[in-house]
Amino acid sequence: MSWVTGGQGGCMHRSRIGVVLIDHPRDRFESAARFWSAARGSERHADGNDPVYDSLDRLPGGVLLELQRTGEGTPPRVHLDIETDDVEAEVERLTRHGAIVVERHSAYAVMQDPGGLVFCVVPVQTGSDFDEHATIWA
Amino acid sequence: MSWVTGGQGGCMHRSRIGVVLIDHPRDRFESAARFWSAARGSERHADGNDPVYDSLDRLPGGVLLELQRTGEGTPPRVHLDIETDDVEAEVERLTRHGAIVVERHSAYAVMQDPGGLVFCVVPVQTGSDFDEHATIWA
Repeated sequence: MSWVTGGQGGCMHRSRIGVVLIDHPRDRFESAARFWSAARGSERHADGNDPVYDSLDRLPGGVLLELQRTGEGTPPRVHLDIETDDVEAEVERLTRHGAIVVERHSAYAVMQDPGGLVFCVVPVQTGSDFDEHATIWA
Repeated sequence: MSWVTGGQGGCMHRSRIGVVLIDHPRDRFESAARFWSAARGSERHADGNDPVYDSLDRLPGGVLLELQRTGEGTPPRVHLDIETDDVEAEVERLTRHGAIVVERHSAYAVMQDPGGLVFCVVPVQTGSDFDEHATIWA
């Protein structure tokens, strides 16, 4: 189900809310992660290459549900990642709608909405689920 | 796709993550709500009966994406609602896994996970999408 906006033509790109992340500082992570695994009846899958994230079973439409270890003393939170096949174009689009860039990394960006809520813009994480569900921005 | 746990028999109930809520205080709500509507390319739907929530188009699997007006001065946040056909049984189940009840209302409960993250347990919000995607707890 895609949704094509009006535009001047040129390159198109796509995006969608692709990841829901439950973030806890390391000293609270283990008890919280055990809880969310039991709450969903889902195994936890460690990412062998990354000590920061564990995954739970995906939400409908292949939306990832991730558990993130954050720095000690940081408050627990949920944040959203917008996945896209063109990070530059998506950051530019969202900036036009009032978001600001907080941190620009080589592969992704940390942004804030106009109310100060943090979210990230990341490369495609969900493969064919992204293809099926992303919105096309023309 | 349901997942049946072992148990001693007796009453079953069901639950799932049914709502993703983007919460902003009233003085920041309008700009943030306009942003998320544009970010998703989704109309905002006011709930005629409730001045607190606006809805955006649903996520895959009928998961609701809601914009909530919170009290002035409260920090922006995302929180999750677990929807269930038996709030009492679900609160009891989640308490057994380490969550605590923060506020008990007649129809729903505000809880915290073992890391202090707030979430809610609410009656079924998504109808047939709940039936299709909820987990069965036996």
